[in-house]
Amino acid sequence: MSLSQLSEIYLPAIELKLQNVVSMAAGSDGLTDEMRYMLAYHMGWDDNHAGPSVHGKRIRPLLVLLVASATDGNWEIALPAAAAVELIHNFSLIHDDIQDSSPLRRGRVTVWKKWGVPQAINAGDALFTLAQEALLDLEEHVSAQTVLIASRRLQQTCLALTQGQYLDLSYEARGDLNLEAYWPMVGGKTAALLSACTELGAISAGASEHICDAYRRFGRDLGLAFQVLDDLLGIWGDAALTGKSTESDLVAGKKSLPVLYALEANGPFAERWSQGPISALEVAELADQLEDEGARAYSQARAAEFTESALSALAEAEPRGAAGLALTELADQLLARKT
Amino acid sequence: MSLSQLSEIYLPAIELKLQNVVSMAAGSDGLTDEMRYMLAYHMGWDDNHAGPSVHGKRIRPLLVLLVASATDGNWEIALPAAAAVELIHNFSLIHDDIQDSSPLRRGRVTVWKKWGVPQAINAGDALFTLAQEALLDLEEHVSAQTVLIASRRLQQTCLALTQGQYLDLSYEARGDLNLEAYWPMVGGKTAALLSACTELGAISAGASEHICDAYRRFGRDLGLAFQVLDDLLGIWGDAALTGKSTESDLVAGKKSLPVLYALEANGPFAERWSQGPISALEVAELADQLEDEGARAYSQARAAEFTESALSALAEAEPRGAAGLALTELADQLLARKT
Repeated sequence: MSLSQLSEIYLPAIELKLQNVVSMAAGSDGLTDEMRYMLAYHMGWDDNHAGPSVHGKRIRPLLVLLVASATDGNWEIALPAAAAVELIHNFSLIHDDIQDSSPLRRGRVTVWKKWGVPQAINAGDALFTLAQEALLDLEEHVSAQTVLIASRRLQQTCLALTQGQYLDLSYEARGDLNLEAYWPMVGGKTAALLSACTELGAISAGASEHICDAYRRFGRDLGLAFQVLDDLLGIWGDAALTGKSTESDLVAGKKSLPVLYALEANGPFAERWSQGPISALEVAELADQLEDEGARAYSQARAAEFTESALSALAEAEPRGAAGLALTELADQLLARKT
Repeated sequence: MSLSQLSEIYLPAIELKLQNVVSMAAGSDGLTDEMRYMLAYHMGWDDNHAGPSVHGKRIRPLLVLLVASATDGNWEIALPAAAAVELIHNFSLIHDDIQDSSPLRRGRVTVWKKWGVPQAINAGDALFTLAQEALLDLEEHVSAQTVLIASRRLQQTCLALTQGQYLDLSYEARGDLNLEAYWPMVGGKTAALLSACTELGAISAGASEHICDAYRRFGRDLGLAFQVLDDLLGIWGDAALTGKSTESDLVAGKKSLPVLYALEANGPFAERWSQGPISALEVAELADQLEDEGARAYSQARAAEFTESALSALAEAEPRGAAGLALTELADQLLARKT
């Protein structure tokens, strides 16, 4: 079975599990219907606009299940972990949208914009709790010790997420950033949760410590490679350059890897950057300038390195069967975007 | 040993455990010093203003340890649970302060006021995670199964907290409230965490299900009685009536039990309430009006009922030794405030 065939089996099971977690929390002692609706709306189960176009591709829980299946053959035991990582991802999105004042997410009004900041903070907190609760359901299939290992792993991940978010928020106000500032931030914001996905899949399936560690490194380096490629696309991708240049990360002022590389080099780009916001009209010229200063080549080299180490860690994990092949396919898809 | 003598032993141990949880999270892969400082500041470990006057009385972790000691004699095994409930309490305070736009807490500037809303949301999320992590340390002394029971109990508590907060926030905008609206809100906002404190103390000490349940009811009813007394003090307490009447809950527009009772009765008080904010000058007269309509007597009767059922549940739990006596002393202290 290919990745798309496996996805056709896994994705409905993930959605059902997520909906069960939120529904089980409702009831006499739990969430009222109004509050449940707020969570369902964010998760993309709103009646009018349901489906992948509003709830995203569920890449993270898919990774959990693929790893569990590639380790042990039984993906269903890992469903609680799959639900947990997706709920953590969504809790962080609700809080991110408040922190960034984003009015829209996937074409729909964000939770804070619809219900106000106080209720949105609280809705995020509720999803955070539900993630914790979902993970405990692992107990149905694995030992209590293993559940505790998984829970500890989830807490480390959440702590890394908050640390990454702290750095991201504090960088907004700083002008003295350099390359060193980049890795701790994306390590927390992107790589931590992806490494938790792959490692929790392996832990759920009862893999050895060595295999769990190989999957952890696979997820982490996949996340880092993905983030660097995303940064490249944000400056040299079609949408950023030839489409709407207002979508360029340069206009958004994002401190992405190519930008931080150039700030450290302290050449003409750094000088222009220090003079204030970049307009859409300057985007093409400044992208060329960045490339001349070596920022594009440097970032491409980092992306290639992380891609290689991710795939080498995956090989070390000795993934089996159709899911094993599908993991490589998923990594290729994530990393093969045109830059 | 009396309550105050036991507190002299427990409180430094609680503080040390809390500081360890936050410090252990720091380091190469964890929190940076700046972020750790933000958490330490909120917890009241700021160098300039440390101590109980800024970090509160730590009643919740004290309850956990007293129950563990009264159940089994060994309070130290329950320190992870004590740290967890205090961290949950503080996570909710950081988010509450944002939601209520409160600039001060115990005489110090609040986290959102000092570092901005985005960083404060994130700091709350970090304490939430640390609470989860702290609880897992129970594993050093109890079985993995017991840790999972405790963790599930913590998640139910956090879900009840978010549900209570949802109701509290949504009531602000509503004019059609009645008595029925009160209990689910305070059940979530006040009673849920106190019932978790007493039950987690018992679970940590390996008590039977029956004893755990009795302690759960003790904590819940103690919380409800405490909240109703707090509501009474907010209108008929010295500070509210004869001191600064600007401190009256009537001026703050708080939908407390006496007010909701009178709104349901729909008499002269309800009519005045519907006409807009109450000024400090009206406080004495409206407090009399509330009393004439029976709101004070009704609330006092409810407080007495919950106090009685709390103490009866405590008796059912058969608390032992000095800690057992101290639990009664603590309950008496909490409930004996002048109304």
